[in-house]
Formats: sequence, structure tokens, C-alpha cells
Amino acid sequence: MIFNEQNISPFSACGTKPFQPASEISHISEAKIDFVYPPVPFPTNALYKQWGEANIRNMVHHHHLLLRKSTIGDLFPSDDVAFIFATEKTADFFVEALGGDRVYTPVHGHPALRKRHLPFTIDEQGRKIWLMMYKKTINDLQMPAQHIEEFWNWIEPLSMRMINRRTTMMPIERYPYASIWGKE
Amino acid sequence: MIFNEQNISPFSACGTKPFQPASEISHISEAKIDFVYPPVPFPTNALYKQWGEANIRNMVHHHHLLLRKSTIGDLFPSDDVAFIFATEKTADFFVEALGGDRVYTPVHGHPALRKRHLPFTIDEQGRKIWLMMYKKTINDLQMPAQHIEEFWNWIEPLSMRMINRRTTMMPIERYPYASIWGKE
Repeated sequence: MIFNEQNISPFSACGTKPFQPASEISHISEAKIDFVYPPVPFPTNALYKQWGEANIRNMVHHHHLLLRKSTIGDLFPSDDVAFIFATEKTADFFVEALGGDRVYTPVHGHPALRKRHLPFTIDEQGRKIWLMMYKKTINDLQMPAQHIEEFWNWIEPLSMRMINRRTTMMPIERYPYASIWGKE
Repeated sequence: MIFNEQNISPFSACGTKPFQPASEISHISEAKIDFVYPPVPFPTNALYKQWGEANIRNMVHHHHLLLRKSTIGDLFPSDDVAFIFATEKTADFFVEALGGDRVYTPVHGHPALRKRHLPFTIDEQGRKIWLMMYKKTINDLQMPAQHIEEFWNWIEPLSMRMINRRTTMMPIERYPYASIWGKE
């Protein structure tokens, strides 16, 4: 199925017309969309080739430990063994997605990230925390500077796709590379 | 802002292509939408003119009492006074929306139904229960048969707009009038 209708406004544009109670004639509230999830540019293997598997795994571990201590920590297993297992699965994904060995899909199948995250309530704020903990991780671990932009331009729109709980009429906030890293 | 891009697939179409790990060349996952909220045909005042304010209010009370006893009962106030207050506010909305006195907007402003429901987690199943309790209400209270189709064709797509928690990759299920009332 391809979506190709014209002139469908996002929800955030609604509420501007006055409410119209029933009269002799019916009226229609037009079709709406919530928002458009933007394209996700997947990175080349350049970061992986320079940094290697161990650093990628370390990055995911670092990020998960930050998340566990954050306000969205209860989205992760409280049991240590289960937490390590979940972290390692994510590390496998990042290793494969960034160009390393195929250690994820042969075991788990297609990442289907939105689908896999549906059991967990992820709102706009949860996604922001996830992203900001990656900013901190990138700084803490000194990711090679020339690869940050490509990595960030992947995870920033990718993280939007995990949002499955809307709490605002506003479009999802964007955090462009230049706004986060421009001054550093 | 008007959404008029071509060829944006809904999420439900994704996951069909094999996962593509990083190589020397980057690749892009195209923009996506979740789903299109269909147009909402608002009813004429025909039901109101025949049934009157008292029956409309009674309908909302009946529906709310059914909801309170349902699996989504915890979305409503447990305190009786607060529950009655919430029910009456909804009844005011239905009276005005269906063509009666302006008893809602002068007090509460624009209905902005999606926005007002954002604090409450409403998933696809919750919306289905809300709708099916209206089916039961319509039967229990013997809404005049000639007005059911117009009423149902309003609340069925309207209820989709309250969904703010997605739990599936599938499009939101539709319950067309003919599928619900065709055999009765």
C-alpha cells in the first residue's frame, strides 16, 4: 500500500477552526495524519572500520548503563542478568548495522525496531532521553569526531520510529546534528 | 502546514525488505507514516430533533456506566462525584455536537478531543471497547433506527482520533456500519 493522497494535514494543524455543531446539513472533518516519520539515512561502515567491534560494544554498554540510571530506567530489566542479556542483544544489532559481523539477524531475524519496541511505552520524552544519553556516550567515549555526524544523522530520525505513545499535538522534536554538535 | 508528499508508505508496509547492514555506501530508509486518520462525517441534527436532549444525555450516562464496568474503567474517575462530573461534561458535548443548545463550548472551549484525551493512554483495544459499548448502548436504549447509521458513521472514525498509544504495526481496525448493524 502506498500513501499518496494530497492535502492531508497533520493533527497539529487542527483545532484552529471553530467547532461546528450539527445543523440540517452534515459536514466533514478532513482526513488527518499525526506526523511524517522522516527518512533515516543509514551510515556507512566508516565508523566501524576505524573504531572496531569492541568500541561499538562498549558504546552500547555505556549507553545502557546511563539509560538504566535515567528516568526511563524502568523500561529495562531490573534483573542484572536480564539487563546484560538485553544490552548484548542491542550491541549485536549495532555491530551488524554498522558493518561488522552478522551477529544479530541470523539469531533474531529482521531488526523490525518499531515492532520490537511496541510492548514498551515510548513517548517523545523517552526518545529524547535515549538520544541525549547517546550524546553523552559519544562525548564520554570520544567517538572519532569525523564519524559523529553520520552516526547522529542515523540515530536521531531512527529513534523517532520507536515512539508509540503521543502526549502532545506538536510534531516530534528534531535534534539536528548542527544544533547538538555545532558548538563543540 | 499541508502534507502533500507522494509515495510515503505506512509503517505496516515495512519489514518486508531484508535488513541491510552498513557497507561502503550509505542507504536510506524512506519516510513513513503510521496511518491516515480517515475523514469524520459529522451528523446532522436529525437524531437530536427526534430524540431530544434527555435521551442524548441518558445515552451518554448509559455508555459511561458500561465503560466504568469495562476493562477500560480505570480511565475514568473512581470517585462517584468526579465520575458524574466527567459524564455530564461528555453529555454536554454530545448535546451540542448533535445540534442542541450550546452547553459545551461556551464553558470548555473547542472540544479538541484528541488533545483532551492525550493525558489518558488510549490504545486500539480501548477504542474498540468504547465503540462496542456504544453499540450496546444504542441497542439497550433503542435509538431510532433511521438515525443509527449517521451516528455510527460519526463516532466510528471519530473514536480513532483518540488513539495515542499504538501496540501493533497493523492499521487501526475499522468497524463499518454494515459490518456492525447489517444483520439487525
